[in-house]
Amino acid sequence: MKVLTDDGNIDIEAVWFEDGMVHMVDQRLLPHNLEVLEMDDHLQVADAIREMAVRGAPAIGATAAYGMALASLNGANLDEAAMDLKSTRPTAFDLFHAVDWMIEALLKGEDAVRSSRSYASMIVEKCRAIGRYGAPLIKNGSKVMTHCNAGALATVDVGTALAPMREAHDQGKEFFVFVSETRPRMQGMMLTAWELSNEGIDCAIISDGASGHFIRESVDLIIVGADRIAANGDFANKIGTFEKAVLADRFSVPFYVAAPVSTYDPSLSQGDDIIIEQRDGEEVTHIMGNRIAPIGIKALNPSFDVTPAELVDGFITELGVLKPDELHRLGGV
Amino acid sequence: MKVLTDDGNIDIEAVWFEDGMVHMVDQRLLPHNLEVLEMDDHLQVADAIREMAVRGAPAIGATAAYGMALASLNGANLDEAAMDLKSTRPTAFDLFHAVDWMIEALLKGEDAVRSSRSYASMIVEKCRAIGRYGAPLIKNGSKVMTHCNAGALATVDVGTALAPMREAHDQGKEFFVFVSETRPRMQGMMLTAWELSNEGIDCAIISDGASGHFIRESVDLIIVGADRIAANGDFANKIGTFEKAVLADRFSVPFYVAAPVSTYDPSLSQGDDIIIEQRDGEEVTHIMGNRIAPIGIKALNPSFDVTPAELVDGFITELGVLKPDELHRLGGV
Repeated sequence: MKVLTDDGNIDIEAVWFEDGMVHMVDQRLLPHNLEVLEMDDHLQVADAIREMAVRGAPAIGATAAYGMALASLNGANLDEAAMDLKSTRPTAFDLFHAVDWMIEALLKGEDAVRSSRSYASMIVEKCRAIGRYGAPLIKNGSKVMTHCNAGALATVDVGTALAPMREAHDQGKEFFVFVSETRPRMQGMMLTAWELSNEGIDCAIISDGASGHFIRESVDLIIVGADRIAANGDFANKIGTFEKAVLADRFSVPFYVAAPVSTYDPSLSQGDDIIIEQRDGEEVTHIMGNRIAPIGIKALNPSFDVTPAELVDGFITELGVLKPDELHRLGGV
Repeated sequence: MKVLTDDGNIDIEAVWFEDGMVHMVDQRLLPHNLEVLEMDDHLQVADAIREMAVRGAPAIGATAAYGMALASLNGANLDEAAMDLKSTRPTAFDLFHAVDWMIEALLKGEDAVRSSRSYASMIVEKCRAIGRYGAPLIKNGSKVMTHCNAGALATVDVGTALAPMREAHDQGKEFFVFVSETRPRMQGMMLTAWELSNEGIDCAIISDGASGHFIRESVDLIIVGADRIAANGDFANKIGTFEKAVLADRFSVPFYVAAPVSTYDPSLSQGDDIIIEQRDGEEVTHIMGNRIAPIGIKALNPSFDVTPAELVDGFITELGVLKPDELHRLGGV
C-alpha cells in the first residue's frame, strides 16, 4: 500500500519480515501517526496481536506466521510458541490456521522465514486476484460505497473490498468512494479513508446514518468485505452492512461482497448459524476515552450483522465473481 | 421534564420565565452537567439562541418569545429587539413566527410576560395532545425505536416523538426504547437517552449503523420527529431517518412521525421541494474538538434527509393520528 510520509511516498505492507525482525504498522496510532513497530521475539508479536496493533483476520494470520518464524529463529519451543500466539485472539480463524500451517512447514524442515513470507504472499496474491475480478465493476465516473476497513491494513496488502478500487485506479479509471465512518470504532473514517487518500483515490467520509440518503441519491455500486460466509450465501460483516444491502436492493444499486474463498464456511448452512459477537457498550458510549453518553445508560453493541444472500449481487473471490447460488462450488477450505 | 440532580428529582422545562428572568437549560453541557442560564436582557437571549444553548425549533421559538418579553419589560425598541432575535438562526420558521406573534400581542397591549408564557404553553399543550394520541400505539412490552432528539429539550417540555413514550410511561406501561446515537452531533446519545432515563423509561443507545439489525430482529414500532412535512406527506428529519423508514417498511414495522400541525407546510408539494441543509464536514471528521479523520479528507454532511410519504404509517399530531393522504385536511398554519 502507498503511504504518504514527510519524506515522500513509500510503499509498505501492514506487516512484513526484514533484517531478522517482524515489522508492523501500529494501526492504533493511525491515521494521525505512522509508526512501525519492530519485534525480534514471538512474545512481542503475541502482545502486538493481543493489543490490536494489527487487526483484520488475514493480517493477524500473517503476523502470527511471522511470529512463528521468529520463534524458530530464536530456538524457542515451537509448541509453546504456537500456544502463545493462538491464545491472543480466541475467535480469529486465520490465526489458528496460520500457526498450524507454519508448524507443518517447520516439521517438514522448510525455511522458517521463507515459509512465513509465503504465507503472507498467498494472502496478498488472493487479494490481487480479487482486485482483477472486481475492477471491471467500477466504471469511469462510478460512485462506489464501502463500509468499515477491508483494506490493505486488514490483509497485509491490497485488501478485499478495496482491492477492486486499487486495481481500477491503477488502470487509470476515475471514480469516487463514499466511506461510511463505521461507528463505533470508526474503521471507515480512520483507516479506509486513510488508505484511499494515500492511493490518490477521491473519497469522502459520511456518517453511517447518511448511507441511505446517498444510496438513493447517487451511489452506483457498493463493495464490502465479509467476516464469514455461510453455505447459502448469507454473510456476516461489520455492523451497518446489512442496512446498506437493504437500501441497495430497494434502489437497485448493485451490492458486492469481496472476500477470499477462505471466508466461505460451508459448515454453517445459513446466516442464522453465525454467532454475533456482542462487544462492550463502552465502545458506543465513549469516544477516544471520553464519555459521551449520560452516566448509567447502557448501550447495545453487536459487532457484526448478517446480510441474507438474496441481497447480494455477487461475491468477488480470487476464483472470480460468483452468484450466491454458485458458492457451493467452492466446497470450502 | 423530570431531571435527576444530586438534590433529588426536579421537574423543569427546557426554558421558562421566572423572577423577571429567562431561565434556560444550557443544552451544550448536557448530559454531563445541568446548568441553568439566567438572562435579564433580550440580547443575552439572542446570544444563547445563536450559540445553541437552546436548540429545537419549537424551543427556540418559545425562547425568542421570552426574549421579546424581556425587551418589553426593559423598555427596549421592540422592532430592533425583534431584529436582534430573528437574526440569530436564519432558517428556523418557529423563531420568526414567535417574534411576530409577540409583536402582535404587545401591539394589542397584552401583558408581555403572560403572552410569552402563553406562547410556550401552546407548544407544550400540543405536545401533550400528541402524547395522548400516540400513547395507544405503545403496548406493554413494546420495543420502540427513535432517532435524534424530538424531546422536551426541543419543545420546552414533553417533546414530539418522546411525547407518546412519556404518556405511555405515565399510564404505567412498561416498554423499551432503542435510541440511535445520531451522528454527527449525537443528539440521540446525549439528549434523548438523558431525557428517557430521567423519566425512568428503559432504553439503550445503539450505533446508527445497528438500526437495521435491530429493526429486523426486535423493533415493534418507530417514532421520529419531523422538521418539515410537505403537502403529500413526504417529510424531512435528521439524517438517518430515511434509512430507518426503508428498513421498517421491509420488515413491516410501523413507522410514525410525531409533529405538531405547524410542521406541515402545504406550500411544498413534495419532498423534493425541501432544501437540505449541508453542514460543515468538521461535524463528521471531528468529535468533541478532536480530529478523528485523516488530515485532508473531506466529509459530506447533509443535516437532514427526506422520507417519502409511502413509508409513513401515520402522523401523530395534536389533532389525532393522520394517514399521509389525510394531511391535506390540515390546510396549513
